[in-house]
Amino acid sequence: MSTEPPLLLALDLTGTFAFGLNGALTAVRAARLDIVGVMALGMITALGGGIIRDMVLDDLPPATFRDLRYLVIAAAGALIAFGFARHLGRIGMPIELLDAVGLSVFAVTGASKAMEFGIGPVQAVILGVVTAVGGGTIRDTLVQQIPSVMREGLYAIPALVGAAITVATILLGVYGLTAALIAAGVCMVIRVLGLRFSLNAPKPRGVHPDFGD
Amino acid sequence: MSTEPPLLLALDLTGTFAFGLNGALTAVRAARLDIVGVMALGMITALGGGIIRDMVLDDLPPATFRDLRYLVIAAAGALIAFGFARHLGRIGMPIELLDAVGLSVFAVTGASKAMEFGIGPVQAVILGVVTAVGGGTIRDTLVQQIPSVMREGLYAIPALVGAAITVATILLGVYGLTAALIAAGVCMVIRVLGLRFSLNAPKPRGVHPDFGD
Amino acid sequence: MSTEPPLLLALDLTGTFAFGLNGALTAVRAARLDIVGVMALGMITALGGGIIRDMVLDDLPPATFRDLRYLVIAAAGALIAFGFARHLGRIGMPIELLDAVGLSVFAVTGASKAMEFGIGPVQAVILGVVTAVGGGTIRDTLVQQIPSVMREGLYAIPALVGAAITVATILLGVYGLTAALIAAGVCMVIRVLGLRFSLNAPKPRGVHPDFGD
Repeated sequence: MSTEPPLLLALDLTGTFAFGLNGALTAVRAARLDIVGVMALGMITALGGGIIRDMVLDDLPPATFRDLRYLVIAAAGALIAFGFARHLGRIGMPIELLDAVGLSVFAVTGASKAMEFGIGPVQAVILGVVTAVGGGTIRDTLVQQIPSVMREGLYAIPALVGAAITVATILLGVYGLTAALIAAGVCMVIRVLGLRFSLNAPKPRGVHPDFGD
Repeated sequence: MSTEPPLLLALDLTGTFAFGLNGALTAVRAARLDIVGVMALGMITALGGGIIRDMVLDDLPPATFRDLRYLVIAAAGALIAFGFARHLGRIGMPIELLDAVGLSVFAVTGASKAMEFGIGPVQAVILGVVTAVGGGTIRDTLVQQIPSVMREGLYAIPALVGAAITVATILLGVYGLTAALIAAGVCMVIRVLGLRFSLNAPKPRGVHPDFGD
Repeated sequence: MSTEPPLLLALDLTGTFAFGLNGALTAVRAARLDIVGVMALGMITALGGGIIRDMVLDDLPPATFRDLRYLVIAAAGALIAFGFARHLGRIGMPIELLDAVGLSVFAVTGASKAMEFGIGPVQAVILGVVTAVGGGTIRDTLVQQIPSVMREGLYAIPALVGAAITVATILLGVYGLTAALIAAGVCMVIRVLGLRFSLNAPKPRGVHPDFGD
């Protein structure tokens, strides 16, 4: 992690903070949790995607365990959510924007790390998406909700685009800070447009689901 | 993977396709998902068991990430389920049979890979079962259902028998393509008989469960 | 594991047995499972925390797969729960005490193993807690309940204290069997006091959760 450009590292830590804060806040809203649950879910949201990525890449212990800053910043985000849940609930949009930063940065750094470890371009794109959405997926599952990434909005798709741009620029030999920022920026723009205009990914047709079994 | 006999590889890829198709279809029925959710759940069902197995065996990145065919075939199965969910819903039995192929092959290849990595016969049988049922368990959990393998039907038990025959023939030094096919065949027969006659594993007696808490 | 003092090993196996028994029993109460589900959940409760710990520490295959005794003892606990669920349901307190032994021992051995692998004191404390509560968290998620550790009672907090004492004594160079027993004992006392007086961790204020979405 220490060889990352400072801007990317700063963005990565910003994303970790945003995911910690937003993850804990989402958890607080979805279920009656105590401080242990709120802290745990904020940290899982912030660190879960990166831990899965590093397990798949066999880069263990995960980066988020080797570099204490990630743990501290994720915990700080979760703690703020615990203390100010009521007030933060009123200011939805800035938090969604912070979350979009996390999504964008994690998609890019996840895909580029996967390429560094040489696992093939298609796999690297998938692992970028997993890094970006993995933490939130675990969080939703733990509070007994079907992961929102699987149901509504545009969340995985901007991450997919960001990861694909990252991998394409690496294959073309033009990856660098500029390319990383462009990839993250495109992901961010799609995500924000999706939020603004309530866009959804297509759904299967003619299925009448029977909830429960 | 490249040293596997072609027939076993073909069966393994058939199982991956079947699990991708059936996993996505099950997910579509259980919950209102978009294309991201359907694709993700199909691929998780197809690849999840093998990824857990390879993490436990420390064979990382998982085989399903090293060999692109697994990812492509799992995605193809999920995509077909997304496009034809309505039609596929009407033809239950052939899909159950395909799923039984996946269960049988994964139990055998999971157990034999575990023996190759030298983790002991009892553990290899368990890991064969985990390979066979792991993907479906993650899928059910993500769509907020108690994993069906834990509640009804004969699903883990045929996998256990198939994995045990595999390990026994390896210990006896007679494991090969024939033994693998016999082990998978026995698993398949038990699974299909269980479906045909609605057999269930025993349940604990005299418990009055209180759902929720 | 073979270099562990016999008393710690005995406690670790006691904890594994207790978690297998109590995990299976909790699962039986929460959902209508068959023998496959009860055995699987008992074993996941008993072994899950240690498997996550060993994956994070890159000590694979996990210790619980290398040493057959853990698997056998966890399975024995789960099998007893399956056979005697009705009778065991009546004797709550001794089972809670056994569970507290598991919690205490796993927090201590989890944290000390993490320190051995050199991942830093804060991370070691967190991994001690994860070892202690991880199995039960997976169990609750699989039976579709929000993990009780995140909602009520004092469960993660005593584990945190036990893990912190362990790490502190290692840093001070005074860790040994006595220190381990003191750390586990403190964890156990806090847990039992929490049960006795129905203590809870603090909850966020002024949040009106909307269950479901």
